[in-house]
Amino acid sequence: MKVTPWEVSGNINYDKLIKDFGVKHLPTQLPKKLQSNILFKRKTIFAHRDFEIILDCIKNRKPFVMMTGLMPSGKFHLGHRVVADQIILYQKLGAKIYLAVADTEAYNSRNPNLEELKKVAIKEYLINYIALGLSTKNLDFYFQSQRSKDGVKSNAYYSLANLASRHATFNEFKSIYGEIDPGKMTSSLLQTADMLHPQLKEFENKPLPTIIPVGIDQDPHLKIARDISQRIKIFKFQQLSSTYHTFLPGLNSGKMSSSDPNSYIALTDSASEVDTKIKKYAFSGGQKSLDEHRKKGGNPNIDVSFIYLKTFFEPNDNKLKKLHDDYSSGKLLTSELKAITVRKINSFLKKHQKKREKAKKQIDKFI
Amino acid sequence: MKVTPWEVSGNINYDKLIKDFGVKHLPTQLPKKLQSNILFKRKTIFAHRDFEIILDCIKNRKPFVMMTGLMPSGKFHLGHRVVADQIILYQKLGAKIYLAVADTEAYNSRNPNLEELKKVAIKEYLINYIALGLSTKNLDFYFQSQRSKDGVKSNAYYSLANLASRHATFNEFKSIYGEIDPGKMTSSLLQTADMLHPQLKEFENKPLPTIIPVGIDQDPHLKIARDISQRIKIFKFQQLSSTYHTFLPGLNSGKMSSSDPNSYIALTDSASEVDTKIKKYAFSGGQKSLDEHRKKGGNPNIDVSFIYLKTFFEPNDNKLKKLHDDYSSGKLLTSELKAITVRKINSFLKKHQKKREKAKKQIDKFI
Repeated sequence: MKVTPWEVSGNINYDKLIKDFGVKHLPTQLPKKLQSNILFKRKTIFAHRDFEIILDCIKNRKPFVMMTGLMPSGKFHLGHRVVADQIILYQKLGAKIYLAVADTEAYNSRNPNLEELKKVAIKEYLINYIALGLSTKNLDFYFQSQRSKDGVKSNAYYSLANLASRHATFNEFKSIYGEIDPGKMTSSLLQTADMLHPQLKEFENKPLPTIIPVGIDQDPHLKIARDISQRIKIFKFQQLSSTYHTFLPGLNSGKMSSSDPNSYIALTDSASEVDTKIKKYAFSGGQKSLDEHRKKGGNPNIDVSFIYLKTFFEPNDNKLKKLHDDYSSGKLLTSELKAITVRKINSFLKKHQKKREKAKKQIDKFI
Repeated sequence: MKVTPWEVSGNINYDKLIKDFGVKHLPTQLPKKLQSNILFKRKTIFAHRDFEIILDCIKNRKPFVMMTGLMPSGKFHLGHRVVADQIILYQKLGAKIYLAVADTEAYNSRNPNLEELKKVAIKEYLINYIALGLSTKNLDFYFQSQRSKDGVKSNAYYSLANLASRHATFNEFKSIYGEIDPGKMTSSLLQTADMLHPQLKEFENKPLPTIIPVGIDQDPHLKIARDISQRIKIFKFQQLSSTYHTFLPGLNSGKMSSSDPNSYIALTDSASEVDTKIKKYAFSGGQKSLDEHRKKGGNPNIDVSFIYLKTFFEPNDNKLKKLHDDYSSGKLLTSELKAITVRKINSFLKKHQKKREKAKKQIDKFI
């Protein structure tokens, strides 16, 4: 198992990751507003650092910030929806949302065409966020490259990345990241600025609890940002909070990758594309033959269709349990489970794609 | 002897520095426009990298850029004048001038008050530049923190620092700088962006010869920027050129330091301040007693008054030679040499300070 911000491979053991990274299991008691959310309920979000601070804000209606970013490349797919749903959840809970388009990073590491990056950020990401429920209320949607239109703000942001660099050592980067080079280091520092800048006087102007929801592979960025934040003395930063979610498997149960269309369900896929992808590519936990399946039953925990239902598309606990049990017992066949999954996804996408059409008209309000 | 961008100490041996840094002596034949300049004539500017490219531009009236920066701290003193005079020289020779206020760096390393930094940059630096002859023609005077007012340009600049980081290794930084940490590395990368960004499409939009005049201690910044510039493939950068000048000694013959008023002559010092500073503090190459001086003579090469005359205030070669010879022979006393120096400096400052008053009214045209 290898889990770094730049590579995830091998068989993921989340309990070992919790130990290795030094993060904590989520508390068993969560406020109802969170517990009722499917990502918390199904433990897709499974670990945290200092999440109690945010729970206190939610409970006592105190102000807090949620910060996250998007890398504008490829299609917006189910893997991206895990964060998108959390953005919208926290926005509804009253958080001020800081949503960064990581175009400076994308520009330098992937695609040296800022206009194209902007197009992808809007067409693939922003429109889907809006369709999923993002509102303009309490939202600061910004491009890293354009954190600049207001001179003072821009300085504060880039200057913070620069300032952060003065509060860490090479050895620290090496011990936290394992492998590191100047490019990865500047990328890490820019993310530190993304996470901390909402608290600067040019932005929210006070130490403010900030929740950063990430995949567990991103924890090293949090570690560095948290360490640096407490060493900077010219500002007082409230320590960052974070939650960690599991990796949503790609169709073949490996990585869901923007560069392989057969690994993902995009939120713009047609009904027939979804049908083909699930039936043809979705990794199954079922047995090889019908007879064997009836006899031994399938394994829903490794079945990609079941995982998608559990993560997003079957919010009803009793129904999910029945699918789980029937599949395990062999009563439910892989083809039947897949058919249910296709139907559920397509029912969601049909509504979602209508909302996308409406969302297109609202873009101007967001940027 | 220790000569790094962050520390200069010991007895400076320029020939050894030329070898150690791997730079070259200036060509003996320079175009008249340069040779007639006192800094070239007196070999205050003594070494270079790829200066031939710039000589060709000057000779054939081809476009080129001069880039330099200022650290907005303390008073503008004679040490700063070495670069200021070169800015004005190259501007007169037709170069496009890029003049950076290193406020992002100053902000993070010294003074977390941007407004104050801006005040110092204007009151101490810009006004003196204007009084020394800087014009608005072909000038891009910018604040690092504000390389942002135009969104596109700002991205290009900061993004270039980020991009640069992807084209160097930690080992390279270590081998070039000797000692390095994340703060120094980000500072180096921002300077790389300062030096190279004029060639980007958002600025001059072509590979363009660029001369960077620096003190020899700053050469590591050049080395990194030059190496990185040739590795970046998504733009084609013309290799940077640089010249190196000697360190102007402070009054006590050590470092001229903004933090020690008795080490420098500020361009705002009054006539009586100059009188006191030279007579009381200027390190003398003369002998301890009058008798001994008459007998053995003084050493003009280590005499701070003589060095100031040679660097700035006695452009007439014959007159300078006479001072040199008379001082060496013991004919000219330290008190007499100092009196001449005071008179020359005060004659310059009287005119300069009148020009400063006029310059104050022109600031708006420059920023």
